[in-house]
Amino acid sequence: MQTVEFYQNAIIKYISDYAKVQEPKNLYEPIAYILKLGGKRLRPVLTLMTADIFECDYNKAMNAALSVEVFHNFSLVHDDIMDDAPLRRGKQTVHEKWDINTGILSGDAMLIMAYKLFENYDVDIFQELAKLFSKTALEVCEGQQYDVDFETRDDVTISEYLKMIEFKTAVLVGAAMKMGAIVANASIEDQNKIYEFGKNLGIAFQLQDDYLDAFGNPETFGKQVGGDIIENKKTYLYLKALEFLNEDDQLQLKHLFSISPRDNVEKIETVKHFFETSGSSSATKQAIEAYSNKAFNILNTLTISDGKKEILKNFGLGLMSRDT
Amino acid sequence: MQTVEFYQNAIIKYISDYAKVQEPKNLYEPIAYILKLGGKRLRPVLTLMTADIFECDYNKAMNAALSVEVFHNFSLVHDDIMDDAPLRRGKQTVHEKWDINTGILSGDAMLIMAYKLFENYDVDIFQELAKLFSKTALEVCEGQQYDVDFETRDDVTISEYLKMIEFKTAVLVGAAMKMGAIVANASIEDQNKIYEFGKNLGIAFQLQDDYLDAFGNPETFGKQVGGDIIENKKTYLYLKALEFLNEDDQLQLKHLFSISPRDNVEKIETVKHFFETSGSSSATKQAIEAYSNKAFNILNTLTISDGKKEILKNFGLGLMSRDT
Repeated sequence: MQTVEFYQNAIIKYISDYAKVQEPKNLYEPIAYILKLGGKRLRPVLTLMTADIFECDYNKAMNAALSVEVFHNFSLVHDDIMDDAPLRRGKQTVHEKWDINTGILSGDAMLIMAYKLFENYDVDIFQELAKLFSKTALEVCEGQQYDVDFETRDDVTISEYLKMIEFKTAVLVGAAMKMGAIVANASIEDQNKIYEFGKNLGIAFQLQDDYLDAFGNPETFGKQVGGDIIENKKTYLYLKALEFLNEDDQLQLKHLFSISPRDNVEKIETVKHFFETSGSSSATKQAIEAYSNKAFNILNTLTISDGKKEILKNFGLGLMSRDT
Repeated sequence: MQTVEFYQNAIIKYISDYAKVQEPKNLYEPIAYILKLGGKRLRPVLTLMTADIFECDYNKAMNAALSVEVFHNFSLVHDDIMDDAPLRRGKQTVHEKWDINTGILSGDAMLIMAYKLFENYDVDIFQELAKLFSKTALEVCEGQQYDVDFETRDDVTISEYLKMIEFKTAVLVGAAMKMGAIVANASIEDQNKIYEFGKNLGIAFQLQDDYLDAFGNPETFGKQVGGDIIENKKTYLYLKALEFLNEDDQLQLKHLFSISPRDNVEKIETVKHFFETSGSSSATKQAIEAYSNKAFNILNTLTISDGKKEILKNFGLGLMSRDT
């Protein structure tokens, strides 16, 4: 086993070898640009780490890990077009640096390139990886569609919201780990368990993201604190608050999530006050803990050494203890 | 063997069973819409026909045929966004009926769904189909990028143009046929030959499309005659004319391809005059015949009965004799 930093550096090196610009340049330059833009590389690191945990040289999982990262970046390129986002990791988004058509076409090519990376494996592994990938990728599209649909709906339930973040974010974390297990020839049972571990950790991670968006440390939180509130985004915090508030306060919160004042300070403060007094913020913290614990409980049933369980648990705890 | 109409009806029936709208509706409705919009279904028909030709029940090739059609429609949805096209087959394009974001996301889902259809085959066939599909799909993206690049370049060579139409259009025709051969367990040699047959027929077909755009029968040609001239599209006709014309006429033709007059009648007539007097129109007809003959010569080397060669040749001749 290696450290997270070790796997990060390994995948970064592999990406830099992979992202060579070939002809036509206008198709492949944006792909190299987004792949080298940085990020924590959490998903491919999880693939490599999982391979190691199931007693397989992490190098064998490199193409699967890269596929996950290429797919993740494909989804960022297309999502950024849909969200009209000018910046990604502090740099220009692809459609901003080039144009929307370039973003669409380069994204399409990346989705195909992600599949092509599985060709480096034997036929059985190829099929297992490609099937898991297709299932996951389609769920990510569905999750994105639910997210878009929720913007204009005012009757989104908590369970619908949880399904949305499961599809949009968590299944790819589960799939990233399962791919490492597939390459390592782990038992089907362990493959499915590591998938559930990753998926539940992914849900906890996304709920934490919702929480930190309102209550994170502005000094260290990567994004603008209160960003979701400014954008009237119906997060877990908002939906739980509506569930707990009385009718008058519900109306007031709904009103606040229908306006976009130029100065947001007061709106953010009032909304956060509702989140806290309604019990929504502590309910969110409880949900984060519940999903984390679910993940850790699954971990305990894996047929791996206690030392390796400890490594995965610490990785999960590390993700969850961030206030950034 | 069955008639073209028979295969068309079979695939249309299969599409209508396949294109059921599931949740989230806003993702799957546009997919059902574009898949049911019609068209000649030439590519999937070729897949079914090829399976039959290699002594395999065409029903076994149905999922591969559908995959080709789903991919083709994916590329139409994304290309129509890039071209800002309001109409497709006389009906609203997806991004026009819904919006650009819906077009992007539904297209992405279709690309994944195309891969998923291969899951209906045994592991070896699955891998062969998926690898051919990835190679072809990436070439189609590259062809689309070259097409975009050529719009703003004035030094496009004939060989670059031929590579562009090969990638953008012809390789998918070749792949559609090869997939039928793969499902039918044809020999690798026959698989590759049928691919080359389809690819060369596809190039001939696209050159014919260029030719008919200028010289087709306005009564029966599906699109507006002169459409490429109005849009200043650098087709084979245009590039060959530049090759043959003297410097003065070259300048005049280049000038005509830099303007967009409100009334196009005179521009179209002058350009067509250049195409004819320069020898470009007859050179284009010769190129169409050369690629058709190349396709038919490959056909002769296949290890199939003369009757079946005749069927494929007649299908090709049917495509090429259209004046529509």
